[in-house]
Amino acid sequence: MFSGAQISLYPMTGDFVGVIMNALGALDPYRERLRIETDDVSTLLVGPPEVLFPAMRDLFSAAARDGTHCVLSATISRGCPGEPDDAICQSNLFEGQAAPLEERRASALTAVQDAPDIGVFGVAQLSLYVMGQGHHMDEIYGCIDFLKQSGTFEKSKHFATKLNGDTGALFATIEQAFCRFGPAEGHVTIDLTVSANSPSAR
Amino acid sequence: MFSGAQISLYPMTGDFVGVIMNALGALDPYRERLRIETDDVSTLLVGPPEVLFPAMRDLFSAAARDGTHCVLSATISRGCPGEPDDAICQSNLFEGQAAPLEERRASALTAVQDAPDIGVFGVAQLSLYVMGQGHHMDEIYGCIDFLKQSGTFEKSKHFATKLNGDTGALFATIEQAFCRFGPAEGHVTIDLTVSANSPSAR
Repeated sequence: MFSGAQISLYPMTGDFVGVIMNALGALDPYRERLRIETDDVSTLLVGPPEVLFPAMRDLFSAAARDGTHCVLSATISRGCPGEPDDAICQSNLFEGQAAPLEERRASALTAVQDAPDIGVFGVAQLSLYVMGQGHHMDEIYGCIDFLKQSGTFEKSKHFATKLNGDTGALFATIEQAFCRFGPAEGHVTIDLTVSANSPSAR
Repeated sequence: MFSGAQISLYPMTGDFVGVIMNALGALDPYRERLRIETDDVSTLLVGPPEVLFPAMRDLFSAAARDGTHCVLSATISRGCPGEPDDAICQSNLFEGQAAPLEERRASALTAVQDAPDIGVFGVAQLSLYVMGQGHHMDEIYGCIDFLKQSGTFEKSKHFATKLNGDTGALFATIEQAFCRFGPAEGHVTIDLTVSANSPSAR
């Protein structure tokens, strides 16, 4: 199954090029397991979720660690019928996806509890889309229940759910939302915004 | 039908607060026809597409006009089964939505040709999601055909389509993609990024 993301990093500073260039080193441990292509709007990362989410987490955390207000925006997708399969996306994360919603929610919560502590605080907003079936809202509501129990939940908003916490727990929560809900071979996407160091009141 | 967007404006400058504050005046002509709520991650705009898209266009164009590299990111949604209806969203844009795909594509092209010239050049990337039906890809492919003929098409990317042009044509194209494809009462979303003045090569 093809999986990956179009990601963009927005440091709110005149030295945005420098901040981005410095943060890119955080992708080095993942480069062999990702296909990466960049243009003027976004960077494509193609690879399995277990590489994709830690890579996004470390890139964002590196950019945010010095206190610059910065945002990572990502369009994350798996199983799009219009995309060819790619060996680099091979993953065993989707075994056991036939389990009932309740079991999948429990294993998602365990994965978030086991997430590493990164030491950077972030706020995330995500919309999960499950396509190609009539009961897409059941899986979305199941995912929202998981998010509310994840320890990172902040509030529900129109069109999105807002989370906050250490970027370790935050990206683990988003990875589980992406992998554990919707059918194993289904077309699932997440529209994600992660922000740190905003001067606005939360 | 409930419709609206969660939007964020990212000016890549240390004076990002000033750029955002100055650009907000561009929303004034639309405020009476939108419900607006802001937090530290995004601003909610609730209203019909014919108000929503010109409002986003004018906000983004105001921020980008002086040459600052800035990005508008938006999660746009209509017909979400989990959202209550709201009188402010009343629109006649969805009449005639039962027409065949080919007719809807033709009227979308006419609307883009009639778009005003704003005088700001932008690059956009969008992903359209049509939910809750088995043949969601037919409407997506129909929309992609429209985008290719719109005059703003730049290229197809994994997970997204990239456009460029004057922000008048650009936002008109995105509005038509949002309104003319997927069922009239269907759940349709767009994950949108619009960028101007990037120093990266296109």
